[in-house]
Amino acid sequence: MTNPFTCGLDAVLFVIGGKWKPLIVFHLARGTLRYGELRRAVGRASDKVLIQQLKELQADGIVRRVDHGEVPPKVDYSLTPFGISLARALEQLCEWGTRHADDLAAILARRETGEETGPSAVVEA
Amino acid sequence: MTNPFTCGLDAVLFVIGGKWKPLIVFHLARGTLRYGELRRAVGRASDKVLIQQLKELQADGIVRRVDHGEVPPKVDYSLTPFGISLARALEQLCEWGTRHADDLAAILARRETGEETGPSAVVEA
Repeated sequence: MTNPFTCGLDAVLFVIGGKWKPLIVFHLARGTLRYGELRRAVGRASDKVLIQQLKELQADGIVRRVDHGEVPPKVDYSLTPFGISLARALEQLCEWGTRHADDLAAILARRETGEETGPSAVVEA
Repeated sequence: MTNPFTCGLDAVLFVIGGKWKPLIVFHLARGTLRYGELRRAVGRASDKVLIQQLKELQADGIVRRVDHGEVPPKVDYSLTPFGISLARALEQLCEWGTRHADDLAAILARRETGEETGPSAVVEA
């Protein structure tokens, strides 16, 4: 099979390029979660978007969805072995984010004050 | 400062969550590139989107843009030290993508044949 990707990162972004997908994989790496738990863990996503991203991760063999067939419905999500290996590959990035949380919070604060919105605010080196 | 992020990965996605940002950082990690070179390396992005993402990465202190003030224009892009450390944190994910390129190409092929589009195609474990 010809490899359709330009590099390994291009390939991985193809499955976790969605806005909430890395976070879904990250949270499920800690263990099986019911939908409501996952939603709270991920935070700001809407139900519609979160459910769509879960469906895609499921179709791509990364997430497993189990419907226990109970009333009221009990549905939970976990990672497949392929998903677990992907979660491990995200660890280094996650550690970088933790290490630089203060820098990143400062960037967020700067964005919120709108400093970067005008091109004139960008000073060339 | 209160940390506004739910976890390290949430924080890092805040700066590289854009569709092409991880690939931009990855390609610039190999060295300074002129705009046209970067565009070819990234591949499928439109100019409009690529330029917008470069502006955001620049505003966030990850990418440095140098306009040499020449005619015709000579503008090149490189990583700041902060960007270089981020690029290193992406390496593990990139390696995972390279190692699983065949699996990922198979997922892409399955998507293209539309196997995953109907819910009926999803078999619960």
